[in-house]
Amino acid sequence: MRLIDLNADLGEGFGDYRIADDRSLMSIISSANIACGFHAGDAVTMAESVMQAKENQIDLGAHVGFPDLQGFGRRRMQIEHRTLAHYVTYQLGALAGFARVHNYPLTHMSFHGALGNMAAEDDTLALALLRAVQAFDPALIISTTAGNAVERGARALNMRVACTLLADRAYHSNGMLVSRGQPGAVIDDSEQVRARIRQWLTSGTLTSIEGEVMPMVVSSILLHGDTPGAVALAREIRREIEQTPGCEIRAISRQ
Amino acid sequence: MRLIDLNADLGEGFGDYRIADDRSLMSIISSANIACGFHAGDAVTMAESVMQAKENQIDLGAHVGFPDLQGFGRRRMQIEHRTLAHYVTYQLGALAGFARVHNYPLTHMSFHGALGNMAAEDDTLALALLRAVQAFDPALIISTTAGNAVERGARALNMRVACTLLADRAYHSNGMLVSRGQPGAVIDDSEQVRARIRQWLTSGTLTSIEGEVMPMVVSSILLHGDTPGAVALAREIRREIEQTPGCEIRAISRQ
Amino acid sequence: MRLIDLNADLGEGFGDYRIADDRSLMSIISSANIACGFHAGDAVTMAESVMQAKENQIDLGAHVGFPDLQGFGRRRMQIEHRTLAHYVTYQLGALAGFARVHNYPLTHMSFHGALGNMAAEDDTLALALLRAVQAFDPALIISTTAGNAVERGARALNMRVACTLLADRAYHSNGMLVSRGQPGAVIDDSEQVRARIRQWLTSGTLTSIEGEVMPMVVSSILLHGDTPGAVALAREIRREIEQTPGCEIRAISRQ
Amino acid sequence: MRLIDLNADLGEGFGDYRIADDRSLMSIISSANIACGFHAGDAVTMAESVMQAKENQIDLGAHVGFPDLQGFGRRRMQIEHRTLAHYVTYQLGALAGFARVHNYPLTHMSFHGALGNMAAEDDTLALALLRAVQAFDPALIISTTAGNAVERGARALNMRVACTLLADRAYHSNGMLVSRGQPGAVIDDSEQVRARIRQWLTSGTLTSIEGEVMPMVVSSILLHGDTPGAVALAREIRREIEQTPGCEIRAISRQ
Repeated sequence: MRLIDLNADLGEGFGDYRIADDRSLMSIISSANIACGFHAGDAVTMAESVMQAKENQIDLGAHVGFPDLQGFGRRRMQIEHRTLAHYVTYQLGALAGFARVHNYPLTHMSFHGALGNMAAEDDTLALALLRAVQAFDPALIISTTAGNAVERGARALNMRVACTLLADRAYHSNGMLVSRGQPGAVIDDSEQVRARIRQWLTSGTLTSIEGEVMPMVVSSILLHGDTPGAVALAREIRREIEQTPGCEIRAISRQ
Repeated sequence: MRLIDLNADLGEGFGDYRIADDRSLMSIISSANIACGFHAGDAVTMAESVMQAKENQIDLGAHVGFPDLQGFGRRRMQIEHRTLAHYVTYQLGALAGFARVHNYPLTHMSFHGALGNMAAEDDTLALALLRAVQAFDPALIISTTAGNAVERGARALNMRVACTLLADRAYHSNGMLVSRGQPGAVIDDSEQVRARIRQWLTSGTLTSIEGEVMPMVVSSILLHGDTPGAVALAREIRREIEQTPGCEIRAISRQ
Repeated sequence: MRLIDLNADLGEGFGDYRIADDRSLMSIISSANIACGFHAGDAVTMAESVMQAKENQIDLGAHVGFPDLQGFGRRRMQIEHRTLAHYVTYQLGALAGFARVHNYPLTHMSFHGALGNMAAEDDTLALALLRAVQAFDPALIISTTAGNAVERGARALNMRVACTLLADRAYHSNGMLVSRGQPGAVIDDSEQVRARIRQWLTSGTLTSIEGEVMPMVVSSILLHGDTPGAVALAREIRREIEQTPGCEIRAISRQ
Repeated sequence: MRLIDLNADLGEGFGDYRIADDRSLMSIISSANIACGFHAGDAVTMAESVMQAKENQIDLGAHVGFPDLQGFGRRRMQIEHRTLAHYVTYQLGALAGFARVHNYPLTHMSFHGALGNMAAEDDTLALALLRAVQAFDPALIISTTAGNAVERGARALNMRVACTLLADRAYHSNGMLVSRGQPGAVIDDSEQVRARIRQWLTSGTLTSIEGEVMPMVVSSILLHGDTPGAVALAREIRREIEQTPGCEIRAISRQ
């Protein structure tokens, strides 16, 4: 039996602002990454997200980013590693507070946006951030794209890792994501997204932007909640998995 | 043996800004209330504060306030109780994150500034906030001025309470603080502050602004760190206690 | 010829967050109130709003609020009048900066949310804020609901006033708005909103929530951009005015 | 007669936080660069700064930085040039609002911290920012270290430039500042600072960190307000200039 986690970045509102239809997506996915008030999210959205994750009995993770609400954490910031490690602790602690109040476990974490991109490219930074995660809770699962510095660092620290497949993003033959700026990087056509998922479910491979069929060893599919039609696409991907013989949706912490 | 806690509000910097000489005060007091990033404080100051509290083996508490750095949490805000309860959870969680990383316990909490004043006057609000504290950690000690809604609420919820004496503030005969705006509310003369402490240490009484000698049942003396001469005054008060026969400085959680 | 201004609160996004379909609304209305970065809005949305106002040749106004993005400026804050006056100057100046760069005039201003409500009830506060507006630019038109402290203050200071009708809100017989909390305060049914506009256009009256027909002397209709169907309703109201003989849509500064 | 401007970065408080003794420094210098609410400063400090500049009849400039109060604008951020240009407009506009209210002219501007460093190294960025300044007010004088991209850009755009000498910083023989991280970059000894000023006043030269005597063509000396002893050092430098025959302190806009 092949177990696949269906994962999304949620809780990305702030005050009156909303990004995605969190309530609907929470009922489709098996794990959620919740913004912790730095790049997005606030105490109210975090409380709601934890309650919704508990209601749906899905994995609850922290999505940790730069302190840059105005740039949604997508702008690189040159900050000392020591300071960034404290930002990681602060965000994990804040979300863990809501988890504690609702008596529901925090299972995993991932790095958001520009912080995630910088950590993916820089082993020293990745290790500094991951050590902060480990000091907070060594059992937290690190969710990341495969083959980057975050995966390497987490394995070096003997942390549990869950690699994710970005359903709507193109990959190079070396397994790296095609940068957002480049043509073809984001796959807008939902039929094409489903075909890619189907290929991966049945053969464990993906076709790179260069046209090569390559193995893709991941345990989780990451959905974007903030694109138009996100909920419908999530439902279709869920059905796609459920209808594939031998495949089952299950959160990482329960695999 | 009379046990007295010596307490101060610290960690009130933000980024490059600093308010008090935290390092010096940490070596004099027996418990610290640390700002959690809303009215003051940030991840770096919180990390440093937790480390300093651990180094000095003093009680570590959360100082929870309004999300108003620009007003230092001293401006009243009309916010729904449910939302404020989530703000309490967020701040407690964030500080607890650093406590966890440094394997040092969070022992108590208090409400800061305008949030503290509003909670002190409003039983419904006090209960809403205290229930959030209790859901987070029922063992947290509530630090508050005596005789207000926060004390009443904490006792009604069977939480442990530590009442504090504000060393440099005048009181009315009914035990309430004289409002900051009124003449004589703040006692600037350090000799007078020491005389008041001495009176309280030896007789358990204080003289009100109206001139009445009244009993003052508290277990903690709260120092202000942000006034000129704060460190020198703290040292004198510490010596005052140490030199009074039968009195000993000890953190609340160790009493 | 009856001249009516069609007005909306826009530029209320922040970073990646968006509230209304500003581009569409800008092509329907005759004046816009732009958030200035305190309760909503940022430099990018302000720049875009000024450019769109210029493209559509509509009146450009500043929508000035509390420094509370998390509460969208809808939570009352107890702030010294002097400080609030400086907040007014800051916001007017910031928006005027973009107006200057695009060589397009700032014509009016209004107070947003909780700041607007507090100023409406308090003559001293209203005067303090209006004096700051007048010191910045005595020619700015003050846009406000009729009959409140802001209108009174502006008239006392000899400032030009434009009173607005809230198309989708119920009024009491004394001309005051029914508070949001009360049943019937917000009129959701677009057919009913149009009927009210029609009544007002043809008779200059409105029917209060108590059932009384009362005169309503205003020169502007304020639309909400953040409700579902806002653009369609705005189009219908525009058509309603255009189809009423003797009525014409025209911005206040051009009346 | 040699005219020398004495300049300092002020208004760098936020809320209750204060950095420098602005009031004292304002009475010593001939021009001030005021933080505009992004990296530091808020509406209240800006209002006070403008009033103090007017009282002392010194030049009033805008100190424009990154939106990063937590990092005091000293951390590099990768932000689109277009967006940064809007940040420039916003900050200039906000300060100009206070200037307008106090009927006192805004004379110059400079880029702060990491934004200043990035602009100094990148001609494209410098031009994008300077074009925003020019669109706001073509008469604003650009204050900058000599020989960098900001000076080149300002001259290319035919803007007036004032080059500044950092009194307490070491220079390389090519005229560039020694980076803060390197040993000897900051000159802490006030006697040494005065000696450097004296050398420059009498010979127009400075000795580089490599030991070469090099010409230094600047019209302004930039003091730091946030170092211990800043006021005393400022007074000594002022006296140094006043006692040098043929030298006179005068603001750039009055030279």
